[in-house]
Amino acid sequence: MNTKQRILNAALTLLNEEGETAISAVDIANALEISPGNLYYHFKGKEEIIPALYDAFEEEMQIILQSGSKDMRSIEDQWIFAYIVLEEIWDFRFFYRNLDSILDRYPVLAPKFKRLLNAKRKAIRANLNNLIQLDYLHIDEVLLDTLVEQNLLCFTYWLNLQEIEQRKIPAQTAIHQSVFQIMTLSVPYMGEAGFDALQGMQALLKKNLAPK
Amino acid sequence: MNTKQRILNAALTLLNEEGETAISAVDIANALEISPGNLYYHFKGKEEIIPALYDAFEEEMQIILQSGSKDMRSIEDQWIFAYIVLEEIWDFRFFYRNLDSILDRYPVLAPKFKRLLNAKRKAIRANLNNLIQLDYLHIDEVLLDTLVEQNLLCFTYWLNLQEIEQRKIPAQTAIHQSVFQIMTLSVPYMGEAGFDALQGMQALLKKNLAPK
Repeated sequence: MNTKQRILNAALTLLNEEGETAISAVDIANALEISPGNLYYHFKGKEEIIPALYDAFEEEMQIILQSGSKDMRSIEDQWIFAYIVLEEIWDFRFFYRNLDSILDRYPVLAPKFKRLLNAKRKAIRANLNNLIQLDYLHIDEVLLDTLVEQNLLCFTYWLNLQEIEQRKIPAQTAIHQSVFQIMTLSVPYMGEAGFDALQGMQALLKKNLAPK
Repeated sequence: MNTKQRILNAALTLLNEEGETAISAVDIANALEISPGNLYYHFKGKEEIIPALYDAFEEEMQIILQSGSKDMRSIEDQWIFAYIVLEEIWDFRFFYRNLDSILDRYPVLAPKFKRLLNAKRKAIRANLNNLIQLDYLHIDEVLLDTLVEQNLLCFTYWLNLQEIEQRKIPAQTAIHQSVFQIMTLSVPYMGEAGFDALQGMQALLKKNLAPK
């Protein structure tokens, strides 16, 4: 692995663990046992590292969203899609935990993040439309719009809300609970099948959270 | 108004407009045209101003939550309750916009905010239970739990999500759209009456957002 990639990896670990405001470029150099000068040769400080990490995140996320928009055949497929999206967000959670303040301080990221929100919104709508076509969901047009927005809100902020209430919650617990929360949003639109679907989701949650 | 209160008012305005990370104690003194020494006589810098503002916010919010938990007689009452809560959050929006990073940097606030989240959760549940008793809502126990959490998530983060996508959105628009989003969460549990309720909410949103 080249030094540039090693810097990004070390930065990501530190930022996720300590939070964006707590970590300086010097902290990152220290963690790698390289000189600050060596780090500055690759990145002109944190203000270049954060956008580089964001670009890596967005690239991966766009691939996930594009592949996730098609081939949604069942509720289980939707569960897995939600899981993969949230796992990716968890891997870059420093960004979501300080979302507003990072977007304020790195103006280059604000339009990029808006673009990503729109891609997420589009993928969520495609998924829900798939479930409607498969006759799993029956929903009014206006409520479909609000359901898409609720999904988007959950995908963006649910992990944060959990972390505020249960500091240092394990990744697996946080992600599975978020998936459950997102999935239950669709249950009232499943008609008679909603009750069974909900029980299936509860069983899946319990199984996934059981100690291995 | 005494100097202490004037400092808090000026700080709140600046923090809401410019964001928490952008504003220093000296900026606040400058806005008031007082010397930094005069400000420091009342507050030992931002690290005392932010918790003082939070305490003022929590005190007002607890009163709103307590009065809002009772006497919920209709969907309109719930609409008004949601509006008042979100208006209060808007008045202290600097805090919500940098929620995670402020809670990291002001450890005294983390347990207080958890307490407030619980009070909000309790008020939301009391409201929804009222609507169930009035026969407006018909909902399974598990879904009631997830509906309470989804309401809480909306009350905490919806304004932020709107601001990220539409910088400088007017307060009235942001708040009314958030109320609409929160209210639609209950619609699928209203049975036959849900369709009429949704139309009523849409009309209310349109009326409230019409230019005066």
